[in-house]
Amino acid sequence: MTDYAEVIERIYREVTPYWGAGKVADYIPALAQVDPRQLGIVVDTLDLNTCKVGDADVPFSVQSISKVFTLTMVVRLIGEELWKSVGREPSGNPFNSLVQLEYEQGLPRNPFINAGALVVTDRLISLYPRPKEALIDFVRSLCGTDDIYYDHHVAKSERLHADRNMALAYFIKSFGNIHNDVETVIDVYCHQCALAMSCTDLARSFLLFANRGVNPLNGEQVLTESQTKRIGALMATCGFYDESGDFAYRVGLPGKSGVGGGIVAYMPGKLSMAVWSPELNSYGNSLIGIEAFERFTTDIRSSIF
Amino acid sequence: MTDYAEVIERIYREVTPYWGAGKVADYIPALAQVDPRQLGIVVDTLDLNTCKVGDADVPFSVQSISKVFTLTMVVRLIGEELWKSVGREPSGNPFNSLVQLEYEQGLPRNPFINAGALVVTDRLISLYPRPKEALIDFVRSLCGTDDIYYDHHVAKSERLHADRNMALAYFIKSFGNIHNDVETVIDVYCHQCALAMSCTDLARSFLLFANRGVNPLNGEQVLTESQTKRIGALMATCGFYDESGDFAYRVGLPGKSGVGGGIVAYMPGKLSMAVWSPELNSYGNSLIGIEAFERFTTDIRSSIF
Amino acid sequence: MTDYAEVIERIYREVTPYWGAGKVADYIPALAQVDPRQLGIVVDTLDLNTCKVGDADVPFSVQSISKVFTLTMVVRLIGEELWKSVGREPSGNPFNSLVQLEYEQGLPRNPFINAGALVVTDRLISLYPRPKEALIDFVRSLCGTDDIYYDHHVAKSERLHADRNMALAYFIKSFGNIHNDVETVIDVYCHQCALAMSCTDLARSFLLFANRGVNPLNGEQVLTESQTKRIGALMATCGFYDESGDFAYRVGLPGKSGVGGGIVAYMPGKLSMAVWSPELNSYGNSLIGIEAFERFTTDIRSSIF
Amino acid sequence: MTDYAEVIERIYREVTPYWGAGKVADYIPALAQVDPRQLGIVVDTLDLNTCKVGDADVPFSVQSISKVFTLTMVVRLIGEELWKSVGREPSGNPFNSLVQLEYEQGLPRNPFINAGALVVTDRLISLYPRPKEALIDFVRSLCGTDDIYYDHHVAKSERLHADRNMALAYFIKSFGNIHNDVETVIDVYCHQCALAMSCTDLARSFLLFANRGVNPLNGEQVLTESQTKRIGALMATCGFYDESGDFAYRVGLPGKSGVGGGIVAYMPGKLSMAVWSPELNSYGNSLIGIEAFERFTTDIRSSIF
Repeated sequence: MTDYAEVIERIYREVTPYWGAGKVADYIPALAQVDPRQLGIVVDTLDLNTCKVGDADVPFSVQSISKVFTLTMVVRLIGEELWKSVGREPSGNPFNSLVQLEYEQGLPRNPFINAGALVVTDRLISLYPRPKEALIDFVRSLCGTDDIYYDHHVAKSERLHADRNMALAYFIKSFGNIHNDVETVIDVYCHQCALAMSCTDLARSFLLFANRGVNPLNGEQVLTESQTKRIGALMATCGFYDESGDFAYRVGLPGKSGVGGGIVAYMPGKLSMAVWSPELNSYGNSLIGIEAFERFTTDIRSSIF
Repeated sequence: MTDYAEVIERIYREVTPYWGAGKVADYIPALAQVDPRQLGIVVDTLDLNTCKVGDADVPFSVQSISKVFTLTMVVRLIGEELWKSVGREPSGNPFNSLVQLEYEQGLPRNPFINAGALVVTDRLISLYPRPKEALIDFVRSLCGTDDIYYDHHVAKSERLHADRNMALAYFIKSFGNIHNDVETVIDVYCHQCALAMSCTDLARSFLLFANRGVNPLNGEQVLTESQTKRIGALMATCGFYDESGDFAYRVGLPGKSGVGGGIVAYMPGKLSMAVWSPELNSYGNSLIGIEAFERFTTDIRSSIF
Repeated sequence: MTDYAEVIERIYREVTPYWGAGKVADYIPALAQVDPRQLGIVVDTLDLNTCKVGDADVPFSVQSISKVFTLTMVVRLIGEELWKSVGREPSGNPFNSLVQLEYEQGLPRNPFINAGALVVTDRLISLYPRPKEALIDFVRSLCGTDDIYYDHHVAKSERLHADRNMALAYFIKSFGNIHNDVETVIDVYCHQCALAMSCTDLARSFLLFANRGVNPLNGEQVLTESQTKRIGALMATCGFYDESGDFAYRVGLPGKSGVGGGIVAYMPGKLSMAVWSPELNSYGNSLIGIEAFERFTTDIRSSIF
Repeated sequence: MTDYAEVIERIYREVTPYWGAGKVADYIPALAQVDPRQLGIVVDTLDLNTCKVGDADVPFSVQSISKVFTLTMVVRLIGEELWKSVGREPSGNPFNSLVQLEYEQGLPRNPFINAGALVVTDRLISLYPRPKEALIDFVRSLCGTDDIYYDHHVAKSERLHADRNMALAYFIKSFGNIHNDVETVIDVYCHQCALAMSCTDLARSFLLFANRGVNPLNGEQVLTESQTKRIGALMATCGFYDESGDFAYRVGLPGKSGVGGGIVAYMPGKLSMAVWSPELNSYGNSLIGIEAFERFTTDIRSSIF
């Protein structure tokens, strides 16, 4: 077995000089207050061997990474049915989102842009009687810990700055592609963004995908192999906003990032890895996170290309 | 060694029932005349072992697949410099192309949409004194045969229906991102689209990418490993028009298709594969080609997700 | 004095054969139920001489015509200040509205497209403590009657189908250009659209503009001459959705239409005229209304071109 | 009769202090070289009485004003037929032009945006065997002088900077709405923009519209009354780029401007007026020209609103 501990410790030392090169997310006050000089790196393998360094156990706001969890919960129940309401193709730049929605009659291009995630959250609400509790329970079952919670301070801050998402949700609803009350959808959405998890939690939870849909903690087949492949392909092509193509090149792993500074990705059949560092690059991805991932896959020569 | 011959022969039998389900490209008369009931499948490995079935040696119009060759020729000479003029991210739907160009001041999102390919061809013209000859020579060197040529009938037909590409080229030129005469750019572009190659040729030529940038015929390092990885990531995220995400899911290999009905893709470190069947699905990709690729990667369980 | 009575009676006979050529608005159920075979025509002059024919005294839903009243109420209080928040230029087709809003950072192009009217309503709410009552009072003062009211059935139906306007309002609010609670803005907006007035009322109310800003009933200077001219220029260039240019040509008077089937316009220094007939043409303007106006201005040779 | 001479002399003195407040067009070198401190004002009446002040007889590049002449030449021959190929409604901001063209399948919104003018020029070429000569002859017949010519230096400069218009023309041609060779269309278009006329010429030529379509020099009915009204309505709603609504308000006359600094407008049944001053405001209209027109219509209280 490769000694990942040594690898990530070296990477930790190599990337800390980048502190100060990025900028903490400031679109909501609750995120702007985070101490930028934090960095955690965790590698987890299918046999549940965890290596960690730095702030690996500090919980932070996972933000858009939560879109993978809600998508998983919906896909496992309705499968291919979902793709009648949300596309599976990369989106152009953010500027186009509203034009695209209008042009394609309220059908978002993929579940990782906000428009698509809102439709997924809407379906979550239709499928699970108590969606917020169900989401927490699901993530806990993947992490094998009850220490996963919503940061209500962040959720509240999100809700106070949700005008753009309210606009998106009402716009999609005007095409009939959101079925529940918009206020409810936005409430759940703001909570899922405010999910607090550590790198250790995130890496553990993504073993599901590395393990072809089976929760390695209890052997449960959460997703079929085909569903797992589908979500993996989506992460590989759309997981990093307008830097998805670059991430594919520099790192070459399916994964997802959030503006809280977290990135989690996985190598099918092998391992998962999570990095957290709050300063973002101009695309909204953790600057140090991407550096760390690039070094890791270069070191162990594991890119898919 | 896996017996790919047996695999592709079985696949050949399985997919021929799909004849009639797609539609031959008809945007130019020269392509519309092609006999739809043709199918060739070729697998080529790094040790130059070729398995083939059906119309594997019939030359056809490679169309957009040529974008990979011109990109390779430009990247090998100017490397990262190119990415100041062309983006590396997936594009939204075709509808957006002109809006996107205007919004991003003449910078196409990637080298595989027409706008980006026109910029690459423009650079090819600046870098190679006799660009059309240089392209043929380059492709011949990858295929190890002189039997590669431009189908002048197709090239002429392309030129007569190039108004949209003329518009794109002049629009980009108005932003200063095309440096040569537009007529010249379009002339070379129409010729590259009209490049005639067989599945055998295509599979052989793509071993370059499977072989980390080294031409396996003569050991020449055509691209650096990093350049190869970059082009591979681009093919994996943008190689199949608006079906790129779906191809990533169903097949999971970097590759490129053309409206002539050809698809070529590769498994890094292992093999390349080309399929040709002229009938297209609604995204402009060979319907039977995608079926064949999906079966192949399912059979040998080689998807990257 | 011209005998307008005779003119409009003849026009009434000439245009009734068009019954059945248009289509009653059906985007909300409350409007779809209106009996299509109704037609009222009223001409009112500065000396308060009224000629009327047909269903001239039947109240109907004025819909977008109310945008002129709210605009007038806001302009009279804050004048040119408003134009920092709303543009004064014709808009392209409706399709562009959201793109335009995004491109111009939440600044609607003019106060007669929905986005602009929402901003005006938002300002009305900021300026008048009880905006709904203030609007009714204002319109009553122009009409010289208390018989103006909100059709609460229509207002409720509007509110139930306001997703698109909710989206617009939240989107504008995300740029900081709506200051009040979106729910409140939409509530007032749905009420203003549901204002019920007859042709007689509408013609009387528009004498304000024909009379250079002075209410002819009581001599009050409601708007300055310059403000009146500004609102008139806006009606002449933007008052009829995507048929504004055609109305300028065919009729050549400043005016405003609503999807309830009402049209009201005026000749500066002379008269106002209102027509109501519920069937709309493909642009959302009263089909018979436009026919009647064209005949009227042709008859009395009063176009401005 | 009003003594316009006195009025325009006073206006001349009032507006010259604005010299330096605008900026000469610099998109082509030939225009950038013009001496900015020039100002001519001419008023011409239906009885052919001309008042002039300043640089009234200096020829300058009429640029977009020529779009009115080509439109007139085409409308007089094919009438309403033209409106199947070009719309009659105001356009949104310039940013949208390409989106709009794509959305509306190559149908430009009106004949005064470049896309629309290119379609008009295309029809001119189809209708007149020697279009450039025909245009000169037509304008000469309106001005009653042979001293109208193309500034070949400007035409050449236009042609060298025509990439954006080439793009538009090819784009429209790809939808089948340009019938002639694009090079030919652009050649004629660059020449019409380079038409050199003085204020005296322009004012005289626009008496055609003030005179209900009859050339006052020879009594010829060039346009029908209805055609004249149509072109007038277009000028009133679309004649001043993104300042058309403001011009309607501040001046209230149908007219047309060009980036050469010329503005010409008319009062139906009365007079025409031309102003030339090369410095432009941010909308591309002559800054001093608009000031002069506003003062004029305020003085003689003749706005249409």
